[in-house]
Amino acid sequence: MLKLKRIGIDTHRESIAYLNRGCTVYQPEEFQALAKIEVVGPDRQMPATLNIVDDPELLTPGELGLSEEAFRLFRLPEGTPVCIEHPRPLESLEAVRAKAQGHILSAGDYTAVIRDIAALRYSKMEIAAFLVACASFMTTEEVLNLTRAMAAVGHRLDWGDKWVVDKHCIGGIPGNRTSMILVPLVMAHGLVIPKTSSRAITSPAGTADTMEVLARVDIETDEMRAIVERIGGCLVWGGRVNLSPADDVMITVERPLGIDTREQMVASILSKKLTAGSRYLVLDIPVGPTAKVRSQAEAIRLRKLFEHIAGALGLMLETIITDGSQPIGRGVGPVLEARDVMAVLRNAPDAPSDLRERSLLLAGALIESDRNVKGGQGIRRARELLESGAALRAMERIIEAQGPSGNGLAASSLSSEVLAPRAGMVEAIDCLRIARVARMAGAPSFKAAGVDLLKKAGDAVRKGEPLYRIHAGLKADLDFAAELAGQDSGYLVDGMVETA
Amino acid sequence: MLKLKRIGIDTHRESIAYLNRGCTVYQPEEFQALAKIEVVGPDRQMPATLNIVDDPELLTPGELGLSEEAFRLFRLPEGTPVCIEHPRPLESLEAVRAKAQGHILSAGDYTAVIRDIAALRYSKMEIAAFLVACASFMTTEEVLNLTRAMAAVGHRLDWGDKWVVDKHCIGGIPGNRTSMILVPLVMAHGLVIPKTSSRAITSPAGTADTMEVLARVDIETDEMRAIVERIGGCLVWGGRVNLSPADDVMITVERPLGIDTREQMVASILSKKLTAGSRYLVLDIPVGPTAKVRSQAEAIRLRKLFEHIAGALGLMLETIITDGSQPIGRGVGPVLEARDVMAVLRNAPDAPSDLRERSLLLAGALIESDRNVKGGQGIRRARELLESGAALRAMERIIEAQGPSGNGLAASSLSSEVLAPRAGMVEAIDCLRIARVARMAGAPSFKAAGVDLLKKAGDAVRKGEPLYRIHAGLKADLDFAAELAGQDSGYLVDGMVETA
Repeated sequence: MLKLKRIGIDTHRESIAYLNRGCTVYQPEEFQALAKIEVVGPDRQMPATLNIVDDPELLTPGELGLSEEAFRLFRLPEGTPVCIEHPRPLESLEAVRAKAQGHILSAGDYTAVIRDIAALRYSKMEIAAFLVACASFMTTEEVLNLTRAMAAVGHRLDWGDKWVVDKHCIGGIPGNRTSMILVPLVMAHGLVIPKTSSRAITSPAGTADTMEVLARVDIETDEMRAIVERIGGCLVWGGRVNLSPADDVMITVERPLGIDTREQMVASILSKKLTAGSRYLVLDIPVGPTAKVRSQAEAIRLRKLFEHIAGALGLMLETIITDGSQPIGRGVGPVLEARDVMAVLRNAPDAPSDLRERSLLLAGALIESDRNVKGGQGIRRARELLESGAALRAMERIIEAQGPSGNGLAASSLSSEVLAPRAGMVEAIDCLRIARVARMAGAPSFKAAGVDLLKKAGDAVRKGEPLYRIHAGLKADLDFAAELAGQDSGYLVDGMVETA
Repeated sequence: MLKLKRIGIDTHRESIAYLNRGCTVYQPEEFQALAKIEVVGPDRQMPATLNIVDDPELLTPGELGLSEEAFRLFRLPEGTPVCIEHPRPLESLEAVRAKAQGHILSAGDYTAVIRDIAALRYSKMEIAAFLVACASFMTTEEVLNLTRAMAAVGHRLDWGDKWVVDKHCIGGIPGNRTSMILVPLVMAHGLVIPKTSSRAITSPAGTADTMEVLARVDIETDEMRAIVERIGGCLVWGGRVNLSPADDVMITVERPLGIDTREQMVASILSKKLTAGSRYLVLDIPVGPTAKVRSQAEAIRLRKLFEHIAGALGLMLETIITDGSQPIGRGVGPVLEARDVMAVLRNAPDAPSDLRERSLLLAGALIESDRNVKGGQGIRRARELLESGAALRAMERIIEAQGPSGNGLAASSLSSEVLAPRAGMVEAIDCLRIARVARMAGAPSFKAAGVDLLKKAGDAVRKGEPLYRIHAGLKADLDFAAELAGQDSGYLVDGMVETA
C-alpha cells in the first residue's frame, strides 16, 4: 500500500497521479507505458494519468501523489492507504474508437462519453481522440445527442414559470459589447435574463472582462440566482457557474488544438443555454472577411444546425445574421469598451451609433418574445427604454447588485496614434489585426489598454489624420503594438491596406 | 525573467513546464488556457505544456520548472534566466487539422509532423489528434510518406555492403519466441541479423524479456553495432537503439488509446527496419481467433499493404501467414520460454516441435535470401545448422558477447495445476486467456513466473489430467491466477470451454 499525498500542481482538468521511480510495491515504468492507472482507496477508485517522480523531496517511494484537482475529486485525506492497479477499461472509450473508425454513435454512447469526460476520467489525449473523431463528421441526430448529454451533466438552473431569455454571439468582432446594453434593456422591459459571459482567451476583451471594469463578475451560482431573482438579470462571468462541466473540460483540449467545428460549437452553446434555463434565445452571427463566420453560406449552414437542434430541444431560437466587416463601437479593450457601453446607455451625443443600433436590434428581437409585444414593435420599445434612461437605471441596479468596482473609465495615458499615410475612404477594418494590436498593447490584462478607433468604414480620411489611437499599459507594449500597426494598420483605404 | 529549474518528474515523452500561480511576471491562468507556452532562453526556445504549481516548496514564483525530459532537451543549466511567451504556432499542426477534416496530406506535411513529434514539440493531445485523424483513412501514398518521414528522423544504422536480414512477427501469440532460435540459425549460415526486440507491455513476455533470462539486453547502439560487426548478429532490447524516435513518442499515445490501425503498424515496423539497415525482411503474420490478426482476409490485406510500402522503399519482403490458433511451445513467461528455446537449440528430445518447426520455416525463408541457396532449400539448410549444433554455438556467442546473465532456467516452485474436469480432445487454446493467467501469476516482472502448457491442440486429455501448470512469484499471485483459470481455463475441449 502507498500513502496518499496531495501534490500542489494544477494539471488543468486532467487527473494526474505521481509515483516515485523507486517504488518497490509496483513497477512504475510498466504502469507508465499504459499511461493511466487506477487509484484504489478503501471505498473508491479513480483513473489518473501517471507521471513518475525522481525527486524524493517531492514524493517518497512509499507515497502516491495526486494533482490538486484529482486530490479534490478523490475526497480522501493525505496519508490514506491506497493501492494502484492497471486502469480499468473505460467502456465509453470503445465508442470513441468506433467513432474514429467512422461509426455513428448512439444517444447512450454520447451520454457515457460525456459523463466520463465531466468526471475527469478521460486523459487529455482521450479527449482529443473524441473531438477529432467527431470532427470528421457527425449526423444531426448525433449533434442533438451530444448536446443533450452535455446538458445532462450540467448544473441546471430552474427559474420556475419565469420567461427566461438569453442572447449569444458567435463572436470574433472586437468591441461588440451588445450584451452589456441589451441585458439592462430587456430587464427594463420586464424579461428575465441571467447572462453569463466569458473572459478573453485570445481576444483583447470578453464581455466578462469589460463588465469587470464596472462591477464584480466573479460570482457563484447561488449569488447569481439571488441577484436575478431580485432584479431580473445579471452580467456575470460564466466561469463560476457550472453550466456545462463537460464543456469546461473539453475546451481545455479544443482551444489549444484549434478544433472548432460547427457541430461542437452548436452542442457547446445550446447545452449551456439549456442548463441556464433559457426558453428563448437570440443568436447573433456576424459575417465578414475577418470575422469568425466568413460567408453568408457558412452563416446559413450554421443557422440551420442551430435551429434544428434548438427546435428538437424545445428552445425557441431567433437567428440574426449581422454585418461583421469591422469592429463595433470605437473602443477595443475592457475600459475603452465599457466607456462606449456607458455612453450608449447614457444617451451621450458621441455614443457609437453602430453599437447602439446593433444592441437595439438584438434587444428588440428578445422583447418580441413577449407575447404582448407585436411583431416589429420590439426595436421601438427597446429604443424607448434606452432614451428614457430606463436601461441606464437597470444597468445601475446590476452594478449595485454585483458590487461596483469603483474603477474609472479613463484609457491609459500612454498612447500613440496610427496615422493615415494618404487621403482616401476607409473600406473595411481587419478585426483580427485590430484585436492583435490591442492585445499587444496589453488588453485585457491591462484593463485600460487597447485601441480607440477614430475612423470607421465609410469615413473619409486626410493624409496624416489619425486612424486609431493605441493605449498601452507599458512603454515596451506601446512600442511593440505601434510597430505591429506600422507593418499593417488593419485599415483598408481605397482598396489598399495602410502601412506607415 | 524567471530562473530555470529542473523538476524531477518524468512526464513520459511530453515536455511539461511548471509555473507558480503567484508568478507576477506572467499571468499563469491565461497561459494555461492555451495549454502550451514557449520557453525562451538566451539562444533557444522550446514549446511545452503548462502545469501550474501552487506549492512554493516545489517551485517559487520567480522560477520556471521543466520536467526531466524537457530539461534535458533544453540543454541549459538550472538558474538560467528564461522568459515565456505565447506558444508559437506549429505549422505542422495545420496539416493535422486538415487531416482531421479529411484531407490528404503531402510528403512534406508528414515530414513536418513527424519531425515535430520526434522533437517533443507536440503535446499528447496533439499527437492523439494526429493519430485519430489518420485512423479514419490514409491513402497508400500517405502510408509511404509517413513511413519515410518516420525513418528520416531515426538514427540510421549503416552496415556497408553487408547483406542484412531481419524478421518481424505481428505478435499476439504467447510463447512464440522464434527470434531467439532463428537469429543464431541465420548467423550460423553467415547472414547478418541485428535483431532488436521489445519488452512486454500487456503480454507475459517480450523477446527482450525472455532473452534477458540468458544475457544482458539493455545495450546501446554503439555496443550493439560492435557486437554485430564481430559475430554477425545480436538479440537486444530495442529501447536503447534509437531506430524510430517518432514511433517511441507516438506509441505512448497509441497504446493507451488502443488505436491500432494497419497503416500505423506498417509505418511503424517498416520505418524501423529501414533505419536498422535491413535489406530483406521476413514477416510472420499469425492468424487465429484469439491472435492479433483474426482472419485470412485481414492477413492478406495487411500483407498487401506491407508489400506495397516495402517495395516502394526498396526493402525485400517475404510474408509468411502462420497458424495462430494457440500458443507456440510450452512455456509462457520469460524463464519458461527461454527453457523451450534452449531445448530446441540443444536438440533436446522433449523440445517443443511447433516452436522448432516455426523457427525453421522462418529461418529457411531468411536463408533463401542468400542467392547461393536454391529456392526450397532454406529450411533444409536451417535444419542442418540446428541439428549440427551450429545454431547452439551461435547462441552461445551471442550470450557471451552481450554478457551472460548467469540465471538458471528453473521455473518458480510455487506452482499449481489446472486440471481437465472431463475427458476429451483439446481443440484450441485461447491466447489471450493464457496470457492473462501468466501475467496474473507475475510474468514478466517475475521472470520465473508464467504458465507451462502440458497439453496442446490435438492432444487427448483424461478427466483430472493437468492441462497446464501455473508458476507464480508470490502466493497471492498464484491464488489469483488459479482463480482466473478456474473461471475459464482458456482450453476448448470438444467444443466446450473448460471451467473447473
